[in-house]
Amino acid sequence: MPQRHNGRNSASLRPLAFASGALTWAEGSCRVVQGRTELLCAASLDDRVPPWMRNAGRGWVTAEYGMLPRSTSERMRREAANGGQSGRTLEIQRLIGRALRAVHSLEAMGERTLRLDCDVINADGGTRCAAINGAYIAAACAWEALVQRGLVRASPLREAVAAVSCVINQDRVLLDPDYSEDSTASVDANFVFAESGKLIEVQMSAEGAAFSDSQLNEMLSLARQGAGEIFAAQKQTLEEARAKSS
Amino acid sequence: MPQRHNGRNSASLRPLAFASGALTWAEGSCRVVQGRTELLCAASLDDRVPPWMRNAGRGWVTAEYGMLPRSTSERMRREAANGGQSGRTLEIQRLIGRALRAVHSLEAMGERTLRLDCDVINADGGTRCAAINGAYIAAACAWEALVQRGLVRASPLREAVAAVSCVINQDRVLLDPDYSEDSTASVDANFVFAESGKLIEVQMSAEGAAFSDSQLNEMLSLARQGAGEIFAAQKQTLEEARAKSS
Amino acid sequence: MPQRHNGRNSASLRPLAFASGALTWAEGSCRVVQGRTELLCAASLDDRVPPWMRNAGRGWVTAEYGMLPRSTSERMRREAANGGQSGRTLEIQRLIGRALRAVHSLEAMGERTLRLDCDVINADGGTRCAAINGAYIAAACAWEALVQRGLVRASPLREAVAAVSCVINQDRVLLDPDYSEDSTASVDANFVFAESGKLIEVQMSAEGAAFSDSQLNEMLSLARQGAGEIFAAQKQTLEEARAKSS
Amino acid sequence: MPQRHNGRNSASLRPLAFASGALTWAEGSCRVVQGRTELLCAASLDDRVPPWMRNAGRGWVTAEYGMLPRSTSERMRREAANGGQSGRTLEIQRLIGRALRAVHSLEAMGERTLRLDCDVINADGGTRCAAINGAYIAAACAWEALVQRGLVRASPLREAVAAVSCVINQDRVLLDPDYSEDSTASVDANFVFAESGKLIEVQMSAEGAAFSDSQLNEMLSLARQGAGEIFAAQKQTLEEARAKSS
Amino acid sequence: MPQRHNGRNSASLRPLAFASGALTWAEGSCRVVQGRTELLCAASLDDRVPPWMRNAGRGWVTAEYGMLPRSTSERMRREAANGGQSGRTLEIQRLIGRALRAVHSLEAMGERTLRLDCDVINADGGTRCAAINGAYIAAACAWEALVQRGLVRASPLREAVAAVSCVINQDRVLLDPDYSEDSTASVDANFVFAESGKLIEVQMSAEGAAFSDSQLNEMLSLARQGAGEIFAAQKQTLEEARAKSS
Amino acid sequence: MPQRHNGRNSASLRPLAFASGALTWAEGSCRVVQGRTELLCAASLDDRVPPWMRNAGRGWVTAEYGMLPRSTSERMRREAANGGQSGRTLEIQRLIGRALRAVHSLEAMGERTLRLDCDVINADGGTRCAAINGAYIAAACAWEALVQRGLVRASPLREAVAAVSCVINQDRVLLDPDYSEDSTASVDANFVFAESGKLIEVQMSAEGAAFSDSQLNEMLSLARQGAGEIFAAQKQTLEEARAKSS
Repeated sequence: MPQRHNGRNSASLRPLAFASGALTWAEGSCRVVQGRTELLCAASLDDRVPPWMRNAGRGWVTAEYGMLPRSTSERMRREAANGGQSGRTLEIQRLIGRALRAVHSLEAMGERTLRLDCDVINADGGTRCAAINGAYIAAACAWEALVQRGLVRASPLREAVAAVSCVINQDRVLLDPDYSEDSTASVDANFVFAESGKLIEVQMSAEGAAFSDSQLNEMLSLARQGAGEIFAAQKQTLEEARAKSS
Repeated sequence: MPQRHNGRNSASLRPLAFASGALTWAEGSCRVVQGRTELLCAASLDDRVPPWMRNAGRGWVTAEYGMLPRSTSERMRREAANGGQSGRTLEIQRLIGRALRAVHSLEAMGERTLRLDCDVINADGGTRCAAINGAYIAAACAWEALVQRGLVRASPLREAVAAVSCVINQDRVLLDPDYSEDSTASVDANFVFAESGKLIEVQMSAEGAAFSDSQLNEMLSLARQGAGEIFAAQKQTLEEARAKSS
Repeated sequence: MPQRHNGRNSASLRPLAFASGALTWAEGSCRVVQGRTELLCAASLDDRVPPWMRNAGRGWVTAEYGMLPRSTSERMRREAANGGQSGRTLEIQRLIGRALRAVHSLEAMGERTLRLDCDVINADGGTRCAAINGAYIAAACAWEALVQRGLVRASPLREAVAAVSCVINQDRVLLDPDYSEDSTASVDANFVFAESGKLIEVQMSAEGAAFSDSQLNEMLSLARQGAGEIFAAQKQTLEEARAKSS
Repeated sequence: MPQRHNGRNSASLRPLAFASGALTWAEGSCRVVQGRTELLCAASLDDRVPPWMRNAGRGWVTAEYGMLPRSTSERMRREAANGGQSGRTLEIQRLIGRALRAVHSLEAMGERTLRLDCDVINADGGTRCAAINGAYIAAACAWEALVQRGLVRASPLREAVAAVSCVINQDRVLLDPDYSEDSTASVDANFVFAESGKLIEVQMSAEGAAFSDSQLNEMLSLARQGAGEIFAAQKQTLEEARAKSS
Repeated sequence: MPQRHNGRNSASLRPLAFASGALTWAEGSCRVVQGRTELLCAASLDDRVPPWMRNAGRGWVTAEYGMLPRSTSERMRREAANGGQSGRTLEIQRLIGRALRAVHSLEAMGERTLRLDCDVINADGGTRCAAINGAYIAAACAWEALVQRGLVRASPLREAVAAVSCVINQDRVLLDPDYSEDSTASVDANFVFAESGKLIEVQMSAEGAAFSDSQLNEMLSLARQGAGEIFAAQKQTLEEARAKSS
Repeated sequence: MPQRHNGRNSASLRPLAFASGALTWAEGSCRVVQGRTELLCAASLDDRVPPWMRNAGRGWVTAEYGMLPRSTSERMRREAANGGQSGRTLEIQRLIGRALRAVHSLEAMGERTLRLDCDVINADGGTRCAAINGAYIAAACAWEALVQRGLVRASPLREAVAAVSCVINQDRVLLDPDYSEDSTASVDANFVFAESGKLIEVQMSAEGAAFSDSQLNEMLSLARQGAGEIFAAQKQTLEEARAKSS
């Protein structure tokens, strides 16, 4: 099977690096680098829930996503200067929020809100998946700090969550595409997995030709394999963070 | 297998009705009724494309979605009065746009824009799928009128598109859920099919427990069966419309 | 006197039809058809009043108005996508609110808010008047349902309200003009009547030549006659609705 | 007949003063004082029309209205800080625009836009009528300056325009009410007259009890009488201005 | 030393006039005229503080700034119609607020908010300084009225505040420039002084060539001298106001 | 003289580090670290100027500023989600723009726009000064790249620009304060210098007590000394960047 333009084979992830604690003030934070894509994820804990959730004894998890104007090859207009967030931004931050909510026990959180801010420093494809991967680490660090300070008994995180994208590009299924592979793909897919292997979210879109069930399953299988590598890297990052903080 | 609260079995669609020509002025239009869900879809053709697409000889397809404030059980705030469209609205109209774009030959459209307005009159679950189903009929009518007037040689629609949703509710996979089945589901899925049987879009979300590959495939199979019935109803509606207009 | 382009004489209304109960969820609703103009009116009751009215023992009546983007011959931009309501929309919904408020006993409402949503499905002139005519039926149905459920003793509606427009077009006064007669008129007038025959609102505007007192009185007289027919149709619609629901 | 709280009888206007040239830079301007109501009106001429009117050889007249935050007894929120103009503001400036447009020959204007800015310095009722009265003087001065500079042959103003309000308060028809008379009235009316005596605009609203045809005609008659006094004052102001500038 | 185009020498202010009580309703108000620049300043007192300041026993001082659309040589777009305040407007009203806050004892105010509205009627340079000068008089009048009514023991104003601008234009330092001197200057400076002679705010900006320390000090010295004249005029205005009201 | 809480003396800067090339895609970029304050600055060059500047043969320099929501000790609301930029943000980005414009020859730029995006990653005081310091390096790198590619003859940057802040805190003048020193200061000052030693911008604000001329001059002198160190660090960073790229 021929190599990809970046030397990878179909099933290989880009070089992956997580660095927890990248931000000075956040309760938990993580720098995520996947190839040339780089994000900062911050977890902020607030001792309140939105008004419509009060007095139910449950917590809430939400996410926001942004891109630095020059994280992209051509400068994008700054959303704050434009007067609002685009449909794409809203769609991505809703996805990140759902993914992280799915691995939290909202009951175990108590009446707290966890806000995950995922900001893209450099973009080269796969930013929404990288955001989920880093947001998980930021959240885990934030909860572990609360456990250490005796404010919650145990982390309300039930398991890890990881996301990975696939495309069909010239009839080949490619794992973790960079921007050049993604922008010329005929099918674009994002998978969010729980560490148990089950699925939390599937989003597949034919940009050009429609796709078959067998292609769906091929992408799913490749994605699950990639997620395994991400789970391993997340685990190692959190163990190193725990070693440092103890 | 036990009946559903509405007397349906797992694999049955709600009563489905399309009525083309529901709007006086639109180039093509369709009233869609799926159970207690009702929408009006309008297709508007414009002899221009957005500025960033000019002089490329290709067309563009886009969609907008809205809900009447009292289409829902509790009145929703009117988005125009609220100062903008919600993230949910933007996400749905982007989905409708992608689905319809996927079955158009943009080259065959010439430099025209097709705008699909999908407005919910009564909502009882499944509005985004019903919007796609009705938008296809509205678009088909609009193009056929252009063909009849000799303005295009042939309709740039390559094939029909249909959408259907499934949920997992209390471990049962249910086709075409109404609002009560949808709002209590643990997994929510939307499938968009081309008439050829291939997939155009898959969106699956675990609202509660994550789901397995076999559940994914069970939902996919049920959805494809439901889409078949929708394609048949679309075909019949368009044939009747053609009979009337000739 | 010559016929109008639509076969009507100066003093004839367009064919008029009210259908109560057109919306599934609203406390009261009405589809209004006046010629080729068609609206859906919904009445929503809320057991609260706005903050600035609390604890005064009185209710409030308010209205919102919208047009489907393709209710018109050329597609209008969707106000929600445009970021707000136009001056015309605000002006119309303020008029509808005043007209309905004028026939309510706010004291008899208790601390409740009645919201009237009037949405134009097809537009061919006269939408603001049709909105008032249908909103009255929607409101009446909503209150009668409350009376039947024993939540209020008697409907706080004191009498019926009806609206009708007139124009001066080529020196002829025409009742209930359609869009083609309205858009070429030199004077445009809207009259809102209480069933007692008194006036609730008069709005007259010279778009071209100014008008005399006798023209004012001629329009007023024609309008009062048209309002009489509308009151009769409203009465019959409500009687049929009562017959059905009892 | 008893006097009003301010010593006036039913048919008397408040003391009225126009001062042309109140603003340094405007092509035409006027300070209007009617009792304790005070406005500044500015006329700005632009050698272009809006894009949708180009190349038709006709001009356009438009108006904007605002209130200083402390023109009122209780401070109002500044509309610019609030993010937009209220429905009331939009309604008033549309009225002013229509009134001034009605006395212009748009053809004689050439492709020019006349913008009338009416800003309330002190408010005590009747600001929309005062705005029309002053805007006419500002416009007349602007056009006369253009005539003097030889840029247009003759003023495109066909005749003067004046506006006056009436109310029914405790069953008495009162001309030119101040705020205390207006805010407790049962019927509120605004009349815009051309100098010829014909009507340009009638706006009557029952805030409480509905009104009869004879009350309508009584208000109309009182208003026409008041307008006569305003036309005289406008004429004198413009003659003095001409005397000064020649 | 050569005269300026307007006949002044480098160190002379434009003719300066304050008129207190210019607005009917405000607790304190002042018309400021500096040359051809004219503003209206209103002081509004509210018996509450913003939510984030409650129950601290301290007051708050804030300011808003606006320009009439035709206060300038070319008509500016109305900010309310534009959907918001510009960066320049926000910057100026923050400056006015800081300047007035600096001379108030917030403790002595009690839980009251003082709002200063500064609206430009005619602009010819120096509007932000004139706004501060007039806002001080409006504030002083508002507090003195409260003292007279026995609602506060003593005015919480600790001392007067005055602002003046300087420019470097063709290497000459000019006091209180008009618009033509300001818009062609290479350095633009605004100084806010307390009556004691100390500085409250310095804002200096090289629009063209940078400036030296000695130029900074020359401007500062000229400005302090100008401020002295403004303090004298403010004092006289307030004494006359007191004489009138006692 | 006593040490500061962070071990510095009055006249010492925080540890300072510039890293050019921090962003993948920007024409020029720089990471700035001053103590615990960290920013990313990006320079984007566009081969057009804004419409109002076209065909004048000159360029334009502009800046935008933002903060990551969790760059601060308590999470700030994201401006894009809030619907716009705050007054503080607009004020800061106008300052950065003026500072950078002051050292550019707009004529030598040709019809190009230089956009400087300054985004705060971690905030601990002094972000607007750090933004200017880093923006200069980003701009210099962007221009040198253009020179190397032969697209401009020479960099249009005339000299370096550096900014530094001072405060008076408990009567001591402190250079380059961190957030804890800044937020409790009585006077807050920002100075922007050209490398020649001249001043480009001075902004001084009494937050509490007013300040004297001698305090002004003491702050100025301390600031100039600090700027000297910044100029040296900028020079070294650019030399290293040149060495690397050649």
